Amino acid sequence: MSIAVILPALRAALDTERVRDDSDTLSIYSRDDTPGSCLPALVLFPRSHEEVQAIVHIARRHHLPLIPRGAGSGNVGGAQPVPGSAVISFECMQEVCDYSPADRTITVEAGMITAAINDHVVQDGLFYPPDPGSSPYCRIGGNLAMNAGGPHAVKYGVTRDYVLGLRAVTGCGETLCCGVRTSKGVVGYDLTRLLVGSEGTLALITEVTLRLLPLPMAKATLRAAYANTASACAAVQRVMAQRRTPSALELMDPHALAAVRSMGAATDLPAASQALLMVEVDGESETIPAQLEAVRQALAGDGNLEILEATDAQATAALWAARKSLSPATKAMAPLKINEDVVVPVSRLRDLLEAIEAIAQEQSLHIVSFGHAGNGNLHVNFLVHPENHEEMRHARQGLQKLFQTVLRLGGTLSGEHGIGSTKREFLPLELSPENLSIQRAIKKLFDPDGILNPGKLLPEG
Amino acid sequence: MSIAVILPALRAALDTERVRDDSDTLSIYSRDDTPGSCLPALVLFPRSHEEVQAIVHIARRHHLPLIPRGAGSGNVGGAQPVPGSAVISFECMQEVCDYSPADRTITVEAGMITAAINDHVVQDGLFYPPDPGSSPYCRIGGNLAMNAGGPHAVKYGVTRDYVLGLRAVTGCGETLCCGVRTSKGVVGYDLTRLLVGSEGTLALITEVTLRLLPLPMAKATLRAAYANTASACAAVQRVMAQRRTPSALELMDPHALAAVRSMGAATDLPAASQALLMVEVDGESETIPAQLEAVRQALAGDGNLEILEATDAQATAALWAARKSLSPATKAMAPLKINEDVVVPVSRLRDLLEAIEAIAQEQSLHIVSFGHAGNGNLHVNFLVHPENHEEMRHARQGLQKLFQTVLRLGGTLSGEHGIGSTKREFLPLELSPENLSIQRAIKKLFDPDGILNPGKLLPEG
Repeated sequence: MSIAVILPALRAALDTERVRDDSDTLSIYSRDDTPGSCLPALVLFPRSHEEVQAIVHIARRHHLPLIPRGAGSGNVGGAQPVPGSAVISFECMQEVCDYSPADRTITVEAGMITAAINDHVVQDGLFYPPDPGSSPYCRIGGNLAMNAGGPHAVKYGVTRDYVLGLRAVTGCGETLCCGVRTSKGVVGYDLTRLLVGSEGTLALITEVTLRLLPLPMAKATLRAAYANTASACAAVQRVMAQRRTPSALELMDPHALAAVRSMGAATDLPAASQALLMVEVDGESETIPAQLEAVRQALAGDGNLEILEATDAQATAALWAARKSLSPATKAMAPLKINEDVVVPVSRLRDLLEAIEAIAQEQSLHIVSFGHAGNGNLHVNFLVHPENHEEMRHARQGLQKLFQTVLRLGGTLSGEHGIGSTKREFLPLELSPENLSIQRAIKKLFDPDGILNPGKLLPEG
Repeated sequence: MSIAVILPALRAALDTERVRDDSDTLSIYSRDDTPGSCLPALVLFPRSHEEVQAIVHIARRHHLPLIPRGAGSGNVGGAQPVPGSAVISFECMQEVCDYSPADRTITVEAGMITAAINDHVVQDGLFYPPDPGSSPYCRIGGNLAMNAGGPHAVKYGVTRDYVLGLRAVTGCGETLCCGVRTSKGVVGYDLTRLLVGSEGTLALITEVTLRLLPLPMAKATLRAAYANTASACAAVQRVMAQRRTPSALELMDPHALAAVRSMGAATDLPAASQALLMVEVDGESETIPAQLEAVRQALAGDGNLEILEATDAQATAALWAARKSLSPATKAMAPLKINEDVVVPVSRLRDLLEAIEAIAQEQSLHIVSFGHAGNGNLHVNFLVHPENHEEMRHARQGLQKLFQTVLRLGGTLSGEHGIGSTKREFLPLELSPENLSIQRAIKKLFDPDGILNPGKLLPEG
C-alpha cells in the first residue's frame, strides 16, 4: 500500500487541509500519554459521521490501518499509531447535536471535550458524572472507548453507566445506530455497551447520547491521616460498609506521601502519617451534616492520626493539595512511570497493598500506589529508568506478579484505563481461551479486515 | 430427531427424575405469562452449570431446541416452547455461591428468586434494587435475560446496571465466564452486558454476580389526583425536572382509573379524577421531609385535585390500593390483554398518551395505560376478545400505529419486557438493517446451530 495512491481519495472525501502528512503534524500525533511513539503516515480530521464513513471505505479498500484518537490522554497506548497508519483525530467534531434538559439527555459528537459537556448543562442544574483526571482536555469518544472512570465512580459509576445510545462506523464502513434516547430500553442485543470499552477496535464512535443527573447542591471534604496502610485500608472498608456512600474515597500509600513530601507539599500532615484518605460527600444541603458525621465515625479508629474537614472552596483546595501534587511529584522521581490500574474487592485492598510492598522489596523497585480506594481501584506506579536493563527486567517480573496477585484476590487488570497495547499480552491471565476466542470472533465480525486500531486490546492471535 | 434417542443421554447426564416427559409436566411448562401455548417434548431440571453444559452438548448433537425458563412470568413469549423442544427450568439452581457484604456483591445461581436475594442481604442493610412486579416469584436468570426493570428504575436503574459478571454456557456448549466481581472493570469486550437482555438466545446464564446497594433508611409515598391526563403528564415533567429524583413515579390514565373504579376500588379519590400519580421517595431519614416538600411542589399545579401523603406502612398500602388492584381489574375486563411496554422521553409522555387515545377511538379499541412515568415507560394494554376477528384486526393495526408513534417520538419498543416471540416482527421498525445484520451475526457466533431459544428476539431472517 502506498500512501500516495490513497491521498487523492482522502483529500476528495475531506478537504486538503484536513488530510495532513507534514512532519510536524505526524510528530504531534505519534504518541499518546504512554511511553513510546510511532510516526503515522497520515493524520485525518473528519468533520462529520459521513466523512468518517468515507475514510473507512477508503481505508478498507487500501488496507490502511486507522487509529482513532480523542485527546491522546490515555496511558495504555490505545491511541498510539502503528507504522503506515492514519490517525483519525475527532477534534473537529465537537458539536452538541441534541440537548433535552427535561429528559436529562444530551447527544454530542465524539470529539467533544468531557468537561465541556458539563459546561453546557450546568445552567440547567445538571451534570455528567464520570470525571477522569483528564476531563478538562479529554474527549468523550475516548472516554467511551476506554470506559473511563474517575474518583466519583465510587458513588456515580463509570462512562458505561451513562451511555444510552450511539452512532458509529464499523470496520466495514457501515453506519451503526444503537441504543436509545430514553432512560430505559431492551430491544435486541446491547451493541451500545459492546462498543463502550472496545477501544476503537470494533467501530469508530461518532456520536453519543448521554444520561445526565441533577447536580448535587452541596459537597464537603474530609482528609484523614493514618499511621500505616493497614489502618487506612481498614477505614476504607468501614466507610464502604456504612450506608452513606461518599462521592469520592481516595487513598495515598506511604510512598505516595513520601513523594509529595519530597516536593515540599503536605507539610501540614502529622509527621507520623504513612497513609492518607481523601473523602468527598455530596448531595442536597440538608444531607451533608449527617453524611459527614457518618463518614467521620467510619474514618476514626486504630491508627487514625487526624481528620480535617472542609466545606468552602479554599479549605477544600488546601486539603486536596497533597493529592494534586502527586502526579508531578512521581514524574520528577524517575524518567519512566509504568502506570497500572488494577482493581480488587474493597475487602482485599489491604492484601493488595501488602503484596505490592513485598513485590517492591523482592524486586528492588520503587512503587508508588494511590487511587480510588472506594472502588478497590489502585493506580500502581512503577518508577523506573528505561536505560537500566536490570531494573526493567525486575519491573516486568513485578508487573507479572502484580497481575497474578490481583487475579488471585478476585480482581481485574484494569478499572478505567483499558488494555490498549501495553497490557494486551496479559489479557490471557484474566480471560479464558473460550472468552478470548469469542472476543476475536466479534472483532472479525465488526472489522473483518482488521483496519480499526490494530495491535490494541486483543493479544496476538 | 426422535426424543427417544436423546432421552437415555439426558437421563445419564441429569437424573431420571429431572428429565420429564409426562403430560402433566409438559402441560405446566407449555406456556409463560403470554397468551398461547405449545407443548415441549421434554422438561429438564439441571442442578449445576456442568449439567447445563451437558444438556447443551447433547442438544447440539441432536438439534434439540432448548427453551430456558425462569419462572415463566414474562409476557412476550420469551419462555414459550417451540414444537419438539426441551424446556430448561432453572428452579433447581437456587444456591448463593458467594456473598460479600463488605464488597456489596453477591453471586447466585440463575434460578434464585429475585426477592430471595433481598431476603438474603437485608440483614446486612443491603438491597438489590431492580424490582419487577414479579419479584416474589420470578428468577434472576429471567431478569437478566429480559433486562428486567420495575418501578424503582426511575432512581435505581435496571438489571443491567447491577450485573457485574456472569457464567454461562454458549450454544456451542462452551463455558463463558465474563465480567468481574469488583465495582469497576474494563478488560476486553463487554460480553456480560451483551448477554444481559439477550433473552437466552446467545447463551444459558447459570450464575450471576450482582452489585448491591445500602438499603434506604426511610421512604414515604405521595398520591396525586388530576383532572386530566395532560395535567398529570405536566406534573411528571415537573417532578423529573427538579433535583430530588423520586424512587418511583407511576401513572394511571383515565381508563386505568375507570377499571379500578369498576372493581369498587379507589373510592376515596376525588370524583373528577381522570389521572393518578403515585410517587415514592426514599433515602436517609433526614432527607425525607425536604424530598417530600420538593416533590409536592412539583406535583401541585393546573389540574391537580388532591395530594395525599403516607409515611407508615398502613397508610402507604391504602394509597397504593388503586394501583395494586389494576392488574386484576384489567384481567376481568376482557379475555385477552395485549400488554405493551413502550418508552418515550419523559417530555413526550403527553404526546404518547394523546396518540394512544386517538388510536383507541379510531380503531374502536379499549386501551388501558399505566406505568413507570418517570422513565417515560408506559404499559399499554389492549383489552380484546380473541374470537372477535374484527377487533383483533383493529388491535393489530393499533399496535402498528402505537409502535410507529413511539419511534416518531424518539422512543423505543420495549423498556423492560423485552421482545420475545410477540414483538420480534416489529424489530425492523426500530433497528436498521445494518444493526439487525450484526445482531444476526452475533447470534450465529454464539449459537451456530440455532438451538438456543429459537423464534425469539430476532425476526425471521
